[in-house]
Amino acid sequence: MNIEPIARIYTDFPDKFGIPRQSGLVDGLIGKIVFEKKYKSVDAIRQLENFSHLWLIWEFTKSKVKPDKFVATVHPPKLGGDVKVGVFASRSPFRPNSLGLSCVKIEKIDIESEKAPIIYVSGVDILSETPIYDIKPYIPYADCHVDAKEGYTAITKHAEIEVDFPSDLLEKIKKDKQEAVLGVLKQDPRAAYNKKPDYIYGMAFEEYDIRFKAENGKLIVVDVCYRNEKNYKNVK
Amino acid sequence: MNIEPIARIYTDFPDKFGIPRQSGLVDGLIGKIVFEKKYKSVDAIRQLENFSHLWLIWEFTKSKVKPDKFVATVHPPKLGGDVKVGVFASRSPFRPNSLGLSCVKIEKIDIESEKAPIIYVSGVDILSETPIYDIKPYIPYADCHVDAKEGYTAITKHAEIEVDFPSDLLEKIKKDKQEAVLGVLKQDPRAAYNKKPDYIYGMAFEEYDIRFKAENGKLIVVDVCYRNEKNYKNVK
Repeated sequence: MNIEPIARIYTDFPDKFGIPRQSGLVDGLIGKIVFEKKYKSVDAIRQLENFSHLWLIWEFTKSKVKPDKFVATVHPPKLGGDVKVGVFASRSPFRPNSLGLSCVKIEKIDIESEKAPIIYVSGVDILSETPIYDIKPYIPYADCHVDAKEGYTAITKHAEIEVDFPSDLLEKIKKDKQEAVLGVLKQDPRAAYNKKPDYIYGMAFEEYDIRFKAENGKLIVVDVCYRNEKNYKNVK
Repeated sequence: MNIEPIARIYTDFPDKFGIPRQSGLVDGLIGKIVFEKKYKSVDAIRQLENFSHLWLIWEFTKSKVKPDKFVATVHPPKLGGDVKVGVFASRSPFRPNSLGLSCVKIEKIDIESEKAPIIYVSGVDILSETPIYDIKPYIPYADCHVDAKEGYTAITKHAEIEVDFPSDLLEKIKKDKQEAVLGVLKQDPRAAYNKKPDYIYGMAFEEYDIRFKAENGKLIVVDVCYRNEKNYKNVK
């Protein structure tokens, strides 16, 4: 079946590294959903403002598996190097059809500006400029299962790490983005099987490059620079 | 983007009429997920047994909108004839990309029979033989939002109707399917804008044709026949 983008989402992640592994983990991460010309209609989202959350079905554009190659298992990044689970028992990006599913919170719906409708959502876990194939309201009676078993994600959900972000470096970042950056780092962007000692990691976030190292079980930010490439559209 | 089926689901619904409007509304409705040859791998569902619920992304095969025609609003069937909501504020099948999203409960996973793996799920709201494009575990910390606002679905979630199913007719149906049939009828398969008085409705369910009418605010089953066409695969 051929599917076509109905919208694109703009976020503070120009690169994959650092994106939280599920939606809702970092509240401060905002995404801006802008519809494609053909679907740009205020009518198409009528009554969406009465819901609080929505589903996005989108495309993993940078984690493609080779066509005609089926890899049945994946390594969830937080489970350590040896544990493999089935691809259909995971939300890994490396899957037969590159479809992502995220539940995000509706923050604001703009129905007046030139590009309206624009939906601002929080808790995003999506690369900037990602094509969106569907938007559906979150319906509590069908979607909210308080008794659901969490499988191996029980181990990984509280995987927060201490972050040391010197205040002179943090102040380089716009005030309204500081909390989100801290939230992203607390999720520990490093995969469990890719923890290099004495290595300076670089995470692109909005217009910044956040450089950090890991020491004694915490992350230490060592520099914040402006990124050179400005050829991406982040959320404004 | 081109996507291809990874599996098909077999349910007791050979036709659209009667399918509950969301997943989870009728527990007794079982679906049997059988993988396509290319994706038939017990490894691919490793650790899925430790979750209780899963997401299915599937195709609305019988509710296509015309290509290049975008219809921005829909009539939710339970809201009465006059209320229109945006297609992206609804889970209507009539949407730009014909993608359905259902959360179902895992009942049993067969990893031993010839066609294994087969996943048996309950609470289905899907037509039999529907192509499945993705299977993902339900992850409570990301998917379960107990504070979510339910929008107009607050009005429709308890839309149960009284059902009068004479016992001699009910006994014509296999014992293990009786509760599911009652559950489906209680959801009132009729759309709010399509309630014809003195009309005998026919609902295909498994190998039966359930005929009913509506009178004084309840549904009365008037006949149960075997369906003539047997050219569909229902869940066994």
